[in-house]
Amino acid sequence: MDYQFSDRVLALKPNAIREILKSASDPEVISLSAGNPAPDAFPVEAISEISARILRDNPIGVLQYGVSEGYNPLRDTLKTYLKEKHNIGSEDDELIIVSGAQQVMDIAAKTFLNEGDVLVCEAPSFVGSLNTFRSYNAELVGVPVQPDGMDMDALEKVLDENPRAKMIYTIPNFQNPSGVTMSLEKRKRLYELAKAHGCMIIEDNPYGDLRYYGEDVPSIKSWDTEGIVIYSGSFSKVISPGIRVGFMVAPKAAMAKMIICKQGQDVHTTMWSQMICNEYMTKYDFEGHLSFLRKLYTQKADLCMQLLDEYVVPNGITYNKIQGGLFIWCDLPEDVDMLDFCKKLTERKVCVVPGNAFLTDSDLPCHSFRINFSTPTDKDLTEGIKEIGKLAKEIIG
Amino acid sequence: MDYQFSDRVLALKPNAIREILKSASDPEVISLSAGNPAPDAFPVEAISEISARILRDNPIGVLQYGVSEGYNPLRDTLKTYLKEKHNIGSEDDELIIVSGAQQVMDIAAKTFLNEGDVLVCEAPSFVGSLNTFRSYNAELVGVPVQPDGMDMDALEKVLDENPRAKMIYTIPNFQNPSGVTMSLEKRKRLYELAKAHGCMIIEDNPYGDLRYYGEDVPSIKSWDTEGIVIYSGSFSKVISPGIRVGFMVAPKAAMAKMIICKQGQDVHTTMWSQMICNEYMTKYDFEGHLSFLRKLYTQKADLCMQLLDEYVVPNGITYNKIQGGLFIWCDLPEDVDMLDFCKKLTERKVCVVPGNAFLTDSDLPCHSFRINFSTPTDKDLTEGIKEIGKLAKEIIG
Repeated sequence: MDYQFSDRVLALKPNAIREILKSASDPEVISLSAGNPAPDAFPVEAISEISARILRDNPIGVLQYGVSEGYNPLRDTLKTYLKEKHNIGSEDDELIIVSGAQQVMDIAAKTFLNEGDVLVCEAPSFVGSLNTFRSYNAELVGVPVQPDGMDMDALEKVLDENPRAKMIYTIPNFQNPSGVTMSLEKRKRLYELAKAHGCMIIEDNPYGDLRYYGEDVPSIKSWDTEGIVIYSGSFSKVISPGIRVGFMVAPKAAMAKMIICKQGQDVHTTMWSQMICNEYMTKYDFEGHLSFLRKLYTQKADLCMQLLDEYVVPNGITYNKIQGGLFIWCDLPEDVDMLDFCKKLTERKVCVVPGNAFLTDSDLPCHSFRINFSTPTDKDLTEGIKEIGKLAKEIIG
Repeated sequence: MDYQFSDRVLALKPNAIREILKSASDPEVISLSAGNPAPDAFPVEAISEISARILRDNPIGVLQYGVSEGYNPLRDTLKTYLKEKHNIGSEDDELIIVSGAQQVMDIAAKTFLNEGDVLVCEAPSFVGSLNTFRSYNAELVGVPVQPDGMDMDALEKVLDENPRAKMIYTIPNFQNPSGVTMSLEKRKRLYELAKAHGCMIIEDNPYGDLRYYGEDVPSIKSWDTEGIVIYSGSFSKVISPGIRVGFMVAPKAAMAKMIICKQGQDVHTTMWSQMICNEYMTKYDFEGHLSFLRKLYTQKADLCMQLLDEYVVPNGITYNKIQGGLFIWCDLPEDVDMLDFCKKLTERKVCVVPGNAFLTDSDLPCHSFRINFSTPTDKDLTEGIKEIGKLAKEIIG
């Protein structure tokens, strides 16, 4: 049969990173391309304990259908936690549980974007989210990222020029892939620009708890008096990605439609996973675990940047210092063919993600690539970055 | 803010059943409105054992990211199982794991239906699926259900009259809500009609293993030489719905796009849940568990139909005898106001689902309601049905 696909999926391509991850599963390859937590980052013992307990004390709760909005004890725990820790969530907001933050992007796009509506995002931005926005035939317009976040003058121009701009998607903390953190001043200006142009904001914050240097910057959602911010959070980087639990905070008036979309996708999120998160947050030392993760990753981030400074920067590649998160963005000189560089690296069994994967149009010129330091062992990280340096020396030097 | 929703969600309403379930959570109410497995249907001990084992032997596998297509051992197990047991799956097919069968409906609709395309379904049909199709602005056209399945002459007429018909959605076994099983002859004719009209078929089979009387009828997918059938299966009724695991078998050429949609929704299905299913299918007596479930539900179906025959039928309500599944469809005389009947029942603390919830347009005339016999205790089932009989006597008799 000659399949007639819907218009919205005609141009869809698989998420480049997840495809690269498949090839990076070759055990001989040093993968700096993932975005996975470190294998020793999981609270395995606590999860085993909780799992045994909930299956003993409340097996029907674990195994029976739940409600689409999510497991109520977890919703209550998160509401209190977000309010106390980040001043997120007002009387007019609602919080629901989703099957990983990716689902926030899907249901927000589905609920608000007609085909041809414009979604404005950082350029570069997280390809998984961009692919989801594309799958509703939204038009993506990228705004360049500066060392303190999105270029606000460029954003204003984009909003002025695009009357169909309906949403601004941002990852304000330790952005994936650029590693950049948006300044408070820019967050405030972003909010004002969105308000003035009648735009919603999706504030995607999967890495917020993973700050290694400097001070926390308040969340945009924390001053959302207009009800224009959809806040997305996730347990993927702080408990486990395999359990697929995220959450969203959004104005009640907008949430009702989004819950219906969530219901239509998977009815509700896995009960076991939701209960694990709630028990872990309420009966274990969640803050202590976050400190442990920050320590673990600070050591890795330190190592990664030291190695880059020693082996890579002297050979002509630059990078942005990061304050947190899992990624570092490296820039090749403009006269070097980035795709060719990444391909040659792969031949030498080191895998990074070509930067064009993160652009609104992967055919745009790009001289950057992304490396991840959370997943590889220190040994692999060292060998991998040395190899990048060696190749840079041959090609650039 | 005055939220501007996308066209596709403007008319969306919450799944009526899931809303009714919320009110039916009042412990004083006898709920015959759910579609939940019986609380004693879950293999709790085995799941606890497996959970402890996988978290001990393979914690990283449980907690780390997985691939969007699903946990490969489970995919292999299911491919072999479906081929051997039901002759489902050819060289040209692929099988992926989804987060409950609901997700099959979402990604199939997203992949194949443009706004305004026509999806043909049984009338009545499962409201959860219909809502998902609606969420892509598909036009739903219902075909009446006869005691041996969809009226094929009516289907042919609908297909002739609707050149934009692109999909036929059917639940051939123990259909939800009508309880009807489609005959082999009709399955064959359905396939030929779809083929002749260039339509895809979604064969939704969540209840197939729950046959209590009569002989299995082959799956439409088992003779799908043209690659036009998307087969949807689920563990919700045979292991647990709270774990959210389903699967789909579809032609490879169509699957690639659907995997991208799955990836965009939730990256992948909860690893723990997938491993539970695989371990249970391969290391425990899965067939024995299915036999146990059939025995459990046969007893409940028997009781339900006996009670209906004794207390309800003599008072003017008719129903379709069923061969399996979880539901029985009851018809009131045409001069009785069905919604009023259901409302009065609720006041008497018995909850059923008004039949119009299952129609392509809930404003169409409807004189039926759905009762479920799998979830209530025998005592509640008895009291609930007696109450239906009493009310019928007052109103009809």
